[in-house]
Amino acid sequence: MRNLNQDNITQAVIASFADAGTPRLQHIMTSLVQHLHAFARDVKLTEEEWAQGIDFLTQCGHITDSKRQEFILLSDVLGLSMLTVAMNTEKPRGCTESTVFGPFHVEGAPKYELGDDIANGASGTPCLVRGTVRDISGSPIPQAVLDVWQSDEDGLYDVQHEGLDQAQARGVLTADGDGTFFFRSILAVPYAIPHDGPVGRLLEATGRHPWRPAHLHFMIKAPGYETLVTHVFRDKSDYLDSDAVFGVRQSLICEWKEQADGSYLLEFDFVLNPTRGHSG
Amino acid sequence: MRNLNQDNITQAVIASFADAGTPRLQHIMTSLVQHLHAFARDVKLTEEEWAQGIDFLTQCGHITDSKRQEFILLSDVLGLSMLTVAMNTEKPRGCTESTVFGPFHVEGAPKYELGDDIANGASGTPCLVRGTVRDISGSPIPQAVLDVWQSDEDGLYDVQHEGLDQAQARGVLTADGDGTFFFRSILAVPYAIPHDGPVGRLLEATGRHPWRPAHLHFMIKAPGYETLVTHVFRDKSDYLDSDAVFGVRQSLICEWKEQADGSYLLEFDFVLNPTRGHSG
Repeated sequence: MRNLNQDNITQAVIASFADAGTPRLQHIMTSLVQHLHAFARDVKLTEEEWAQGIDFLTQCGHITDSKRQEFILLSDVLGLSMLTVAMNTEKPRGCTESTVFGPFHVEGAPKYELGDDIANGASGTPCLVRGTVRDISGSPIPQAVLDVWQSDEDGLYDVQHEGLDQAQARGVLTADGDGTFFFRSILAVPYAIPHDGPVGRLLEATGRHPWRPAHLHFMIKAPGYETLVTHVFRDKSDYLDSDAVFGVRQSLICEWKEQADGSYLLEFDFVLNPTRGHSG
Repeated sequence: MRNLNQDNITQAVIASFADAGTPRLQHIMTSLVQHLHAFARDVKLTEEEWAQGIDFLTQCGHITDSKRQEFILLSDVLGLSMLTVAMNTEKPRGCTESTVFGPFHVEGAPKYELGDDIANGASGTPCLVRGTVRDISGSPIPQAVLDVWQSDEDGLYDVQHEGLDQAQARGVLTADGDGTFFFRSILAVPYAIPHDGPVGRLLEATGRHPWRPAHLHFMIKAPGYETLVTHVFRDKSDYLDSDAVFGVRQSLICEWKEQADGSYLLEFDFVLNPTRGHSG
């Protein structure tokens, strides 16, 4: 400890975690330090770059509040969010795939009855959404609870509108006894993730755009099944091949059908995976 | 991009940086993503742990202000600061070694004349500090500028005292034409890094203490020489073998001699490394 240098410091830091409260925490900190130091050595990080990194994280912290989460955005644009989802949601073929949670979910969204319009004043082309929630054998899962959220036609979620204090284009619904759900909302459009902060500047500096393809968020819960966090993407949307947060999966892309009156219809069925120990 | 999974997402993220503004930025982002993803795979990071990580960074951001820098503390306790210093300050044997900058330096500290008492009211046992600034051949470097800072006997830097709006135990001095400097201050004591925030909770959870051995900070500048950022550590201090930020180097440990009147004397000479292109 009195003669640490660039070759032996990593082992000294790892040794400092010998008394961590749990083996899991020790494992995580050991791996974190190994990979963090390996990164610094790999690029031979300069002191100026280190200071830029500290400043970047500080800016992320200062722009983050109850409605803006820059660290989740950072994790999203670095692919860490999608990697974490992918590693933790392996499931049998036939189950609906998961994707990123994103920073715009709100706990305690308003409850709606089937058939209600969850737009609640959000601007956009009307869209009817309907489908069923089933298990992998095709049997309906009754009374599944669907938490739904999306942006408006300006590409903004309700929480991004200054001064708006009511939920718009988000709500919680309960499927009926046949696993069927239906509700009205608005047509999803592509939108840019918030890019007026440090993550936006990172994207700009690295020649990347901030856009996500059009999608509707779902979080679906039912007793005995794994919670499904996913989106349904709109086919023909721009950015399906360059999603800023790497969240697209082919199986989640669906045709949103234009109707004679100019409104849209989205039909999508979800298949839940039983929790371990349940047969489904 | 439409069929990303845990095996191919890393390459997709790396590919997204193909148009980065500079090759250096592309190299850094590529390496960062490789190591970040390797960490997540190595520990098979759970979604709950990911969320804890987001929350931890958010807490670091929210406690950070103009006087508290939790991200530097985090870098320090993970050994990243010292690793970065070590990689960037390799110099010929005989030059004074560098160590971590720390989060308590203040730009624009008050200027003092040689012989002044920079304590300026800070509590502690009086200590006279003197020495010379030389080049590697032993020749004095005239008019080197020394920026000095330290904690008081309670282990707190001036910026940590609520409501104190004057600099204490910090100042800027200019060595004389013979490279000699001398000033009065107070005896350094061990102190705990700020541990009432997320980094403190991390240390506690991992069974680590927050203490640093007694030291006095120096940043020394002279035209034609690399800026030296270092500490002088007090021998016989506790924590020399378990510095919370991994900053101790044997060559920087020095005897602080108690005098007949109870005050202390610290004598330490610094040897600067010429900047590239200068012969010194």
